[in-house]
Amino acid sequence: MAAALSPASSLRLKPLSAARFLSIYRRQTDPNKTIPTTLTNLTTKPRFPPKPLRYSITLSSVKDSPLSSSNRRRFCTVVTGALSSGEAVESAKREGGPDEGLDRLGQTLVVRGWVRTLRVQSSVTFIEVNDGSCLSNMQCVMSSDAEGYDQVESGLIATGASLWVQGILVPSQGSKQKVELKVEKLVMIGRSDPSFPIQKKRVSREFLRTKAHLRPRTNTFGAVARVRNALAYATHKFFQDNGFVWVSSPIITASDCEGAGEQFCVTTLIPSSHEAADSLADSIPKTEDGFIDWSQDFFGKPAFLTVSGQLNAETYATALTDVYTFGPTFRAENSNTSRHLAEFWMIEPELAFADLNDDMTCATAYLQYVVKYVLDNCKEDMDFFNTWIEKGIINRLSDVVEKNFVQLTYTDAIALLLRANKKFEFPVEWGCDLQSEHERYITEEAFGGCPVIVRDYPKEIKAFYMRQNDDGKTVAAMDMLVPRVGELIGGSQREERT
Amino acid sequence: MAAALSPASSLRLKPLSAARFLSIYRRQTDPNKTIPTTLTNLTTKPRFPPKPLRYSITLSSVKDSPLSSSNRRRFCTVVTGALSSGEAVESAKREGGPDEGLDRLGQTLVVRGWVRTLRVQSSVTFIEVNDGSCLSNMQCVMSSDAEGYDQVESGLIATGASLWVQGILVPSQGSKQKVELKVEKLVMIGRSDPSFPIQKKRVSREFLRTKAHLRPRTNTFGAVARVRNALAYATHKFFQDNGFVWVSSPIITASDCEGAGEQFCVTTLIPSSHEAADSLADSIPKTEDGFIDWSQDFFGKPAFLTVSGQLNAETYATALTDVYTFGPTFRAENSNTSRHLAEFWMIEPELAFADLNDDMTCATAYLQYVVKYVLDNCKEDMDFFNTWIEKGIINRLSDVVEKNFVQLTYTDAIALLLRANKKFEFPVEWGCDLQSEHERYITEEAFGGCPVIVRDYPKEIKAFYMRQNDDGKTVAAMDMLVPRVGELIGGSQREERT
Repeated sequence: MAAALSPASSLRLKPLSAARFLSIYRRQTDPNKTIPTTLTNLTTKPRFPPKPLRYSITLSSVKDSPLSSSNRRRFCTVVTGALSSGEAVESAKREGGPDEGLDRLGQTLVVRGWVRTLRVQSSVTFIEVNDGSCLSNMQCVMSSDAEGYDQVESGLIATGASLWVQGILVPSQGSKQKVELKVEKLVMIGRSDPSFPIQKKRVSREFLRTKAHLRPRTNTFGAVARVRNALAYATHKFFQDNGFVWVSSPIITASDCEGAGEQFCVTTLIPSSHEAADSLADSIPKTEDGFIDWSQDFFGKPAFLTVSGQLNAETYATALTDVYTFGPTFRAENSNTSRHLAEFWMIEPELAFADLNDDMTCATAYLQYVVKYVLDNCKEDMDFFNTWIEKGIINRLSDVVEKNFVQLTYTDAIALLLRANKKFEFPVEWGCDLQSEHERYITEEAFGGCPVIVRDYPKEIKAFYMRQNDDGKTVAAMDMLVPRVGELIGGSQREERT
Repeated sequence: MAAALSPASSLRLKPLSAARFLSIYRRQTDPNKTIPTTLTNLTTKPRFPPKPLRYSITLSSVKDSPLSSSNRRRFCTVVTGALSSGEAVESAKREGGPDEGLDRLGQTLVVRGWVRTLRVQSSVTFIEVNDGSCLSNMQCVMSSDAEGYDQVESGLIATGASLWVQGILVPSQGSKQKVELKVEKLVMIGRSDPSFPIQKKRVSREFLRTKAHLRPRTNTFGAVARVRNALAYATHKFFQDNGFVWVSSPIITASDCEGAGEQFCVTTLIPSSHEAADSLADSIPKTEDGFIDWSQDFFGKPAFLTVSGQLNAETYATALTDVYTFGPTFRAENSNTSRHLAEFWMIEPELAFADLNDDMTCATAYLQYVVKYVLDNCKEDMDFFNTWIEKGIINRLSDVVEKNFVQLTYTDAIALLLRANKKFEFPVEWGCDLQSEHERYITEEAFGGCPVIVRDYPKEIKAFYMRQNDDGKTVAAMDMLVPRVGELIGGSQREERT
């Protein structure tokens, strides 16, 4: 029997995902080794050190090709000996790469990625390759004597093709990057041709919606994916570092929470997707009285998609003290605005033994933490947004991190709006709900871009479970307002008196 | 106008959530300070240092009561000066608390939590309080001269009541814990009475299902919540540390992936929950031909809950190289087994420029990482499971972390099963799918508890997109088998040839 060991990966380094140049692989020098050996000069203790072998090993003959096992991935986008500790990688990551690659000059590296552009000139071919680890491409410069040049000549390497490129890192002649890869060998993994729909010219988001399988390869969608990823991870990190327990509240539910929104029904009474498009309405089971026969549905009764995990989180908070949910939430409201989505991921922290001050402190600390995390870790992507998508976004986010949050009562907010020298579409009076125009006036104009927390709302416009204040008219609720958005976070202290 | 500042919380310390005693709060000594000042002897740099004040501050008069703002939560379950750096907290966390609290003897601390048991004796009352930060309770010992003893006498403090208790940490006379809290002051926050359904005696999980709002307060559900939380966070941490980008694949979808399972239909054609129970079948919109009129549904066509995020993750992997999904997934299969759930959270990593070896290495490294994380960080909860829920679980999981994973081909696995001196319910022959009994024989008996990866399955029993091997009969697919479970992880290399 041929049983071979699969040793744990040597997870030596953190990735350099935010470096200002493409992630790069050190060349494998010994194709007969299954476990990489080129990194022996690293001093970092591997997280999973290689184990002694205890079963007989059968190694099939291994060729030095891009997909052979000699190129075993090391779960690390940059694996050069120059970075000798996790610390160094971390600092490199923060600063956008040590000198943008200059410290790796002369090294033989491997890049795997997708062609963004290809320019054939008389003496040399320029290929911009991107692997999605960051916004910047790696410029690969190939002369006609390099191995694999016939593949360039074949015309199959166009925008969208995937490549394996090995070369030496040299100083770049161009002004856009400090280093480039002088290609020694190129292997085409997936070909492309000029019909590839996402070429260098800018395309509309409406067009990209029709090419959903390819749009992650654009600068915008790649940057959004990386920033969204950073926001999600920072969210978990913030709550975990502060002792909160993540609770996965049920998605399919029979409860309606506070009636937070219209619900989607989840059912198997209607046949599965293969036949749904032409299913007969009469095939839905009925009772004798003509009602839908829910006893024949999957759960034996009506079931819906959750509109909020709050009810579930509350039961855990009153057992584990501090918990949070972070999962998808659904609202069947047919409003096509930037504030309404049918499906979105929501974060719902619940704190026991806490009052409204604790709630506001938590919301403030959370927001500042995740925004700072993104500004620190996604600098290149944020610069891209600042230049191409929304000018001033970095300054606005820096304000959130650096400025003190203003706190005022709803009553004071109304007084402020009534005194404002501005005509609002929705009239202002004590008792009205604040509209986006009011919220944005408060945070953008009255407080010059400071995030503002408005607290103590009239009880009539808030949910039944919020704690009544001593004035008998308001409840311990708060909304956090930020420029350009308005309400970003809402919270409340629950009524504990019976 | 009264505008008050809400400074960012001083997130100074990591929580000591896995300590072997209850989380404890240092007493607030100055009730007139909004910002805690008792931790000035800490040398750790606060993550959010207090900002200079720039707006006029209106502080309402603050009383030293449990819910007043003077007890501003610091998002940290243990805040003692003894732990002077994050490093120390981290090491304390791993080892279950420094000497189980002995190093805090003599300190005045505050505990907030729920009463597990209360025993009134002639001279003294014992109250076991738990706040969910760990399995162990804090034993609070109260004599009749302590402040708040009248509340004990009132009989309202029974199992399930919530308390705020301040006291001095003293050596315990009991054998179950090294320290206990000598109560100086007790405040009842939420009362209870003997009808509270979860008393000290053991109750069945079937009974707890009928008390879903209270079961998080049991040892079992609390431990499950903490372990599940640790597994989820370790999952994110593993992939993030290795450069993967988290992708939130759509939950509501019109695609069926590989036909991985029966789908739930998501619709608003059936009225929302308030009226659903008695909705007339005839109210569902029909076309003239009697078909369901999907044009009137929320999305204008049939929509379903996702059975897999793979298709979406693949489009991102071919742009960002390494991605993973981690979100809820739904299967409308009416099988009531431990292997079937209607709703579950699934992790789907997708790696570009990777072969089956990379896939197996990733799966192995991931599994070993998360299991080790739980064994390291949830020791007390795992000991509880090992004693009360499933004996031997710690040894079995330690095997996963420490043993080498065996790797063998499907063909070799079949040969092994045919040679086995064992009668299987399902007959074995080349080409058959492996049943749980086969998988468990391989990992539990043939390889003595080692996790086993079986690879190169017949193409007929695997999905169409898996890469065909050179033999023309098998595909580059793998299943990871572990004792007691059977298949835990499945994966494959995709066919890239056209």
